Amino acid sequence: MILPVTFWFEFASTYSYLSVMRIDAEAEKRGVQVIWKPFLLGPMFKAHGWNTSPFVVYPKKGRNMWRDVERRAEKYGLAFNRPDPSDPRDFPAHSVLAARIALVGLDESWGKQFCRNVYVAQFANGEDVSDPVTLTRLAKSAGAEGGIIARATTPDNKFRLRTQTEDAFAANIYGAPSFTVGEELFWGDDRLEDALDWALR
Amino acid sequence: MILPVTFWFEFASTYSYLSVMRIDAEAEKRGVQVIWKPFLLGPMFKAHGWNTSPFVVYPKKGRNMWRDVERRAEKYGLAFNRPDPSDPRDFPAHSVLAARIALVGLDESWGKQFCRNVYVAQFANGEDVSDPVTLTRLAKSAGAEGGIIARATTPDNKFRLRTQTEDAFAANIYGAPSFTVGEELFWGDDRLEDALDWALR
Repeated sequence: MILPVTFWFEFASTYSYLSVMRIDAEAEKRGVQVIWKPFLLGPMFKAHGWNTSPFVVYPKKGRNMWRDVERRAEKYGLAFNRPDPSDPRDFPAHSVLAARIALVGLDESWGKQFCRNVYVAQFANGEDVSDPVTLTRLAKSAGAEGGIIARATTPDNKFRLRTQTEDAFAANIYGAPSFTVGEELFWGDDRLEDALDWALR
Repeated sequence: MILPVTFWFEFASTYSYLSVMRIDAEAEKRGVQVIWKPFLLGPMFKAHGWNTSPFVVYPKKGRNMWRDVERRAEKYGLAFNRPDPSDPRDFPAHSVLAARIALVGLDESWGKQFCRNVYVAQFANGEDVSDPVTLTRLAKSAGAEGGIIARATTPDNKFRLRTQTEDAFAANIYGAPSFTVGEELFWGDDRLEDALDWALR
């Protein structure tokens, strides 16, 4: 029996960008089913006593992260533009609306393409992906019908994202991307292949 | 011109174990020269406001680290025994004497083998590698002459380890293992191959 892999990602996370762009091809190669689960890292960071990304809390770690993602994006043939320190865009981006839209889209046919659109907009094109106008455009270009902001912000859908984030916390997830396969937890884009391979054991 | 790779490692670090065991074969495959530099992570952790390993400070991260190293050791064919939670051994180990001995050995012919011996003793055999008697045995079995503790603890050699640790700090290193190639910094055993490949660019 091939186990499914649950793919946990956060829209503000740079390494999640690499995995979102790579996972479909790697999963297809292996015939592994992947369940996409956006969640919010904020509560995990708060549990660690941080009020923002560890890449902001620890500047040396942050500096090397940007360079490392740049090198790896090049290796994978992905566009990447690291924000200039003087860039007015916030890092980490406020990702809650993108995650709420993704939840809707992943139940329909346009979810994965919406996710890829958001990451490319953010990390290749330098767009502000907390902006509802931008997100509406990215959802439409992925194939969403109109009224997506209203559908994403119903009490039910907000509750669903909160629940999914609590599920991630309960699964001992503390960073993104993460992959769960049965009882196994893999953390980081550099464990993507290992997680998919584990499903085949 | 092939750049040399500087390999920074800490004796208490689990991921450094994986790199210490793997780096010679990977470097040889590529014809890359590697300079081994043990250093102490303690000052880096202090700069982050931690008084011990982040794997102790953040228990979920720590729990997954042990399992991740276990999985990767299996993948690489390396023996690994993760300490039982009730294990009286300390993690992280007090690594200063091992690092001082390694500095002496790396100037002679037995340094690399001593390093490998210390990691295997610690992470495969569950030995206390802060113990001078254990370290003397591991040094001798690597080919060291007698009197190694005395030679490792001269004021000059202590100063040398302090300086090497300051050099790591100045090179923006914040974890182990790390690899520096020219101006590039790579962090983590999972970047070992990337660092060596970079030397060939």
